[in-house]
Amino acid sequence: MELKKIVDYWKACCYLSVGMIYLWDNPLLKEPLRKEHIKRRLLGHWGASPGISFTYVHANRVINKYHLDCIFIPGPGHGAPGFIAPIYLEGTLSEYYPHFSQDEEGLKNLFRAFSFPGGLGSHCTPDLPGSIQEGGELGYSLSHAFGAVFDHPNLIAITLVGDGEAETGPLATAWHCNKFLNPIRDGAVLPVLLLNGYKINNPTILARIEDDELLNLFRGYGYEPKLVDGLEKMEVHEKMAQTMDWCVERILSFWEEARTSQKPFRPKWPMIILRIPKGWTAPREVDGHYIEGYWRSHQVPITDVDKHLKVLEEWLRSYEPEKLFDERGKLREDLRDLSPKGSKRMSANPYANGGLLRIPLKLPELKELAISVQEPLKTFYENTRPLGKFLREVIRKNPDNFRVFGPDETHSNRLHDVFEFGKVWIANVLPEDKDEGYLSPFGRTVEVLSEHTVEGLLEGYILTGRHGLLNTYEGFAPIISSMVNQFGKWLDIASDVPWRMPISSLNLLLTSVVWRQDHNGFTHQDPGFINAIVDKWPNVVRVYFPPDANTLLCTVWMCLQSTNRINIIIVDKQSHPQYLDLQSAIKHAEKGIGIWDFASNHVEDEPDVVVASCGDIPTKEAIYACLMLRDAFPDLRIRFVNVVNLLCLTPNSEHPDGLTDRDFDSYFTKDKPVIFNFHGYPWLIHRLTYRRTNHSNLHVRGYRENRKIGIDATYLTPFLKGRGGITTPLQLAILNQIDRFSIAMDVVERVPKLQGRGGSFKDKLKNMQISALEYAYTYGVDDPNLEKL
Amino acid sequence: MELKKIVDYWKACCYLSVGMIYLWDNPLLKEPLRKEHIKRRLLGHWGASPGISFTYVHANRVINKYHLDCIFIPGPGHGAPGFIAPIYLEGTLSEYYPHFSQDEEGLKNLFRAFSFPGGLGSHCTPDLPGSIQEGGELGYSLSHAFGAVFDHPNLIAITLVGDGEAETGPLATAWHCNKFLNPIRDGAVLPVLLLNGYKINNPTILARIEDDELLNLFRGYGYEPKLVDGLEKMEVHEKMAQTMDWCVERILSFWEEARTSQKPFRPKWPMIILRIPKGWTAPREVDGHYIEGYWRSHQVPITDVDKHLKVLEEWLRSYEPEKLFDERGKLREDLRDLSPKGSKRMSANPYANGGLLRIPLKLPELKELAISVQEPLKTFYENTRPLGKFLREVIRKNPDNFRVFGPDETHSNRLHDVFEFGKVWIANVLPEDKDEGYLSPFGRTVEVLSEHTVEGLLEGYILTGRHGLLNTYEGFAPIISSMVNQFGKWLDIASDVPWRMPISSLNLLLTSVVWRQDHNGFTHQDPGFINAIVDKWPNVVRVYFPPDANTLLCTVWMCLQSTNRINIIIVDKQSHPQYLDLQSAIKHAEKGIGIWDFASNHVEDEPDVVVASCGDIPTKEAIYACLMLRDAFPDLRIRFVNVVNLLCLTPNSEHPDGLTDRDFDSYFTKDKPVIFNFHGYPWLIHRLTYRRTNHSNLHVRGYRENRKIGIDATYLTPFLKGRGGITTPLQLAILNQIDRFSIAMDVVERVPKLQGRGGSFKDKLKNMQISALEYAYTYGVDDPNLEKL
Repeated sequence: MELKKIVDYWKACCYLSVGMIYLWDNPLLKEPLRKEHIKRRLLGHWGASPGISFTYVHANRVINKYHLDCIFIPGPGHGAPGFIAPIYLEGTLSEYYPHFSQDEEGLKNLFRAFSFPGGLGSHCTPDLPGSIQEGGELGYSLSHAFGAVFDHPNLIAITLVGDGEAETGPLATAWHCNKFLNPIRDGAVLPVLLLNGYKINNPTILARIEDDELLNLFRGYGYEPKLVDGLEKMEVHEKMAQTMDWCVERILSFWEEARTSQKPFRPKWPMIILRIPKGWTAPREVDGHYIEGYWRSHQVPITDVDKHLKVLEEWLRSYEPEKLFDERGKLREDLRDLSPKGSKRMSANPYANGGLLRIPLKLPELKELAISVQEPLKTFYENTRPLGKFLREVIRKNPDNFRVFGPDETHSNRLHDVFEFGKVWIANVLPEDKDEGYLSPFGRTVEVLSEHTVEGLLEGYILTGRHGLLNTYEGFAPIISSMVNQFGKWLDIASDVPWRMPISSLNLLLTSVVWRQDHNGFTHQDPGFINAIVDKWPNVVRVYFPPDANTLLCTVWMCLQSTNRINIIIVDKQSHPQYLDLQSAIKHAEKGIGIWDFASNHVEDEPDVVVASCGDIPTKEAIYACLMLRDAFPDLRIRFVNVVNLLCLTPNSEHPDGLTDRDFDSYFTKDKPVIFNFHGYPWLIHRLTYRRTNHSNLHVRGYRENRKIGIDATYLTPFLKGRGGITTPLQLAILNQIDRFSIAMDVVERVPKLQGRGGSFKDKLKNMQISALEYAYTYGVDDPNLEKL
Repeated sequence: MELKKIVDYWKACCYLSVGMIYLWDNPLLKEPLRKEHIKRRLLGHWGASPGISFTYVHANRVINKYHLDCIFIPGPGHGAPGFIAPIYLEGTLSEYYPHFSQDEEGLKNLFRAFSFPGGLGSHCTPDLPGSIQEGGELGYSLSHAFGAVFDHPNLIAITLVGDGEAETGPLATAWHCNKFLNPIRDGAVLPVLLLNGYKINNPTILARIEDDELLNLFRGYGYEPKLVDGLEKMEVHEKMAQTMDWCVERILSFWEEARTSQKPFRPKWPMIILRIPKGWTAPREVDGHYIEGYWRSHQVPITDVDKHLKVLEEWLRSYEPEKLFDERGKLREDLRDLSPKGSKRMSANPYANGGLLRIPLKLPELKELAISVQEPLKTFYENTRPLGKFLREVIRKNPDNFRVFGPDETHSNRLHDVFEFGKVWIANVLPEDKDEGYLSPFGRTVEVLSEHTVEGLLEGYILTGRHGLLNTYEGFAPIISSMVNQFGKWLDIASDVPWRMPISSLNLLLTSVVWRQDHNGFTHQDPGFINAIVDKWPNVVRVYFPPDANTLLCTVWMCLQSTNRINIIIVDKQSHPQYLDLQSAIKHAEKGIGIWDFASNHVEDEPDVVVASCGDIPTKEAIYACLMLRDAFPDLRIRFVNVVNLLCLTPNSEHPDGLTDRDFDSYFTKDKPVIFNFHGYPWLIHRLTYRRTNHSNLHVRGYRENRKIGIDATYLTPFLKGRGGITTPLQLAILNQIDRFSIAMDVVERVPKLQGRGGSFKDKLKNMQISALEYAYTYGVDDPNLEKL
């Protein structure tokens, strides 16, 4: 009896999905269907929609039966109609958007708004309550789901994985996230593979292998898969209901077993393979082509409506809307009873609006973790190491609200103090796993060699109200640039959705930077991630280049308190000179840019030249250049400017952190030469500053993706032996002319006051470059004396 | 007996690997090891090296035994020592680099050169004979391998997959490539999973699950896995030899069965899981920490050599170099006999230097495929459709030398004429698969919903001497931006390696462009891939924006003949006006930039304004703007410039296709306003042109990643209803001000001659914009009359 109602509820969903794609008017088919009832432009993805609604309504049943807290993650998010339909029917959509009311008028508004200018998106978007991911770029549903249930012990993420999506790399590896799920403290993911057989224009691989291969694959991934299929609709519904019960009972018993015994273990988590026809319930054949159960049902199954108006009407009437909705257009009362109530509805569950649950982090006192810097340039430190201690304290103070993520580089990145709390691991262990960075089911650092997976886990974790930080090599950050891009678009739109509460920012720490990929060589050298991100939404993106350990601490301290942003923090892990004590660092990080007196000359006067830097290694080189210049030309007035917050260079009309032109000019002057030593591609600085007064005097050095010497320094060519990608740090700097000698020469060449005076100094610098190269080629290392300059 | 020699050969490899990491001198340990024999900087990855060499020497055995043609793809390419060692021992390295001779001096040179400035890379690089992929970024070994054996029926790619690499998404999904391998016409991939248990700092997932899960996983992927392990070294060697024999015999019998019967089928291809300790043969424990069989063996296992010189010496001597090499430093003669000879050596096999095998494509006559364009602007065409016919003919003429690749969008991208030759599919089929785009084991289009996989397959295909083209949505191209980046670095270096013959270019066709993602919305809008690529190596990268169907044909025609490049071609698939007949298109595509008379006014004079465009949709809008301007101001001298080859805008000192300043000025004038309508982010044009004479007069419109109206058009704000990501094409253009009306207004505002004259015209344009928006909000489509302008 209940099952019959579930079928009807699902039919109502399917009816709504078809309506969203086709109907402009006559939403309840009270009149015969006429051409003017059809939208002028037919848009939307039908194919996945019936399967999405099907799973949603069956999830509703178990939520009620077992009093569960669930969220629903529709991997094939193109099938937005299949997700919008049930969230409309359970009333949430009407609560957030009153014009989508529970009546004929509301239905009409909903149909019209779908995939219509100014209306609802064609995929799942932040506008939809219950949604925690954009449905455009495929592959991230599972890692989002696992991230969502970490430290949410009573949450089940019902995750529909499309069999198309399953072919993507990020999804194919995300199945293994079960090795990081602790049934004592974490919730559960219930994956439902929607095996409907087709993508846009092709069958799916998983639908065209034998059942034993299919089942073995998921057993190999560590699940206990159950196949749900059948020849008749009712049979599939019955099997699905039984299987959902079984899955939920398995999950609850695993939870209970682990929580009662307090012994964490890795269960064979249940999963469902739902084999139903693509575009189920559409006409099977039109114009000699299959629709239902074929790829032609992927988007709009019948496009030539003029010709097939009758077919469309029959299709719509096959759901018998008059039996599903009352006269006024409201869902039948006994069907309405099927949906969970209040915040048990998956579309109204606060887990899917994570900002509601977000508790600000308890942060340690910076003064307890800052390093002592009595005088600039006198102490050396690995910049990331104190950050490791800071993050360790953040973990201590927020034992279930903060995690560190990384693709196996947290140790290499000198953040290993966080390992005091262990690394998460729910697979087999060996005695030696107690060595540094011990493995534990209760660890707080999540490491797996998939940038996609750790990024997805972090996104899922913060989307559901928590905090985190991902550390990775700068050179491999581009692996996730499209993923971060999609998340940025989500944040950009979500920030404008009034009922979405702000979530914690996505904090990405990029280290092992381009300038220390000398020995890994050319392929590890890529500062391009910054560019990819800076091109995007100004309200979301921040990029920080802390020059030393204390400024890094202050920067992360700020980032961990911010919301709805993507914070990129770029800093090297090797030992470098320190400049700022804590008080100066706080000021510097907050302001994002500053004049450094200790590296300047004649600070109070208008300078002859501005030497600017952004990035820890270019900063060091630029400072060393200034020290040499001060020695050589005591009358040269140098102003040294350091930039932490890259986007403060942008005009304030384009970025909220941008400096006004007046402020910009006060740092960079209106007419003096500026030598800018930058961490990344030099043209990025030009792009940010090309509207500034003094832009024509701005000379930028940076990484040039170039294994040959720059055109300004061909005198070095004879001293560049061989052509391999291997260099030393200083040699790499010289190749790109961000080194101290090149910067000093730049200044000599650009400052009018020094015309005719710099010849012998420049010769000296050139000789020092040549010696440095010769030393590197002889010993394979940089002359250690050069660090003592 | 032979096995004992194989063990010795492998020991020689291991000795060389340790030597490369540590030894500066005393390469044969003829003297006791002293501090001065050690390199000053210890670099390199030991952990994977023994496993790489192990597999290599066992591959050698079967090559000899079965007379095979094999290449070797070391997925864990960080372990370069393990790959360099056998290619040195078999003589190839010495042939290419005579100073790495087969004697003590050559050994010393090799040890010194490894990971040393100007020497050999720390990972597998193009400098190494036999290598076809860079070892830096992990995840691409399997897709490269499958691409390499497509249409190479006698080639076996022995592919070592690291258990770390196996965690990446691209690798996790690439196992499924066996569904595209036809045993009649393709070779075989023999995957060897190197299950050595650890990554940089963590265990690997696959090493910490039960054997039944592990084996099921690979059975699920469609393989017949064999586990090779053992307690004693000899036992592992024995098992490996037996298993390699079994694998090769399986492969040969599958080939024979399929080729004899001429009935293609999908075998359960054999694969090996090689479970050996990480860093095998290193000391087990140093300073209370495990080395061998633990993650601490990943890079340099013993770093404090001052303290542990004795341990290192014992380790080196454990290989008994005096028994492996003769007095002069040459490998023992009976061991030398073990390696295959000549081009059977995997390091000398021409398949791994694909340019040697490359046969230029036979191309169809353009005139047979060009569309007829009598007069500009009068005919409309889907730009990509004629290209589909062209590619179909390329397939016809090159039945085993060219393939089309795509992630399930070839049909959607209007290239479906290539389906005349079917889509590759070696999995189950259904009767309906005969519908448009039929599936066939002999198909020539490869589609799988993983951008990573199709990119990797195409790379593998061209790396081994063939030709291809990948088509994908522009918005999802960023998914592979890091992968394309790595390939570009490979090409950049490979172009400088004298013995590497040029390979076909990587041709990427990006369609479903940003300007037609109105209905898919904000998340599908991303022209950022262009930026990511333009930032890279000038000798490799080309970016083309053909404005119409014929120019597209000519552009692809050129790209398919080029070598060692990455050609990005960006064009929309929807119906657009056509401008050029074939002759004009050939000229335009070759030159890369041109003045279009039909859109200009008073061509012979110096213009009042230059209207320029790059990209098919911005071009259309800019032309429509010019037509309106000509009507309104007959005395206005407009020059219309269209750019196909984006990088011609770059100074010729920075890019081989760059225009000289003189030529640039001849197009863009020295002092007239230039309104530039661009496909991508506007600042990219500024970055390319900021050094040009007339840059300060250059006003660029383009995509601004912005859902709100630009600051110059706030009068439109009241007409922008709602805030969803859905728009119409013209509405999207207006939002970003690349529309005809905005461009015309820009001209009116910028041309001195029109000062004070443009008021009523601008009012008219504004009203047209407002009407267009109102129409879009009313009907969900653009006013069809606007296309008839």
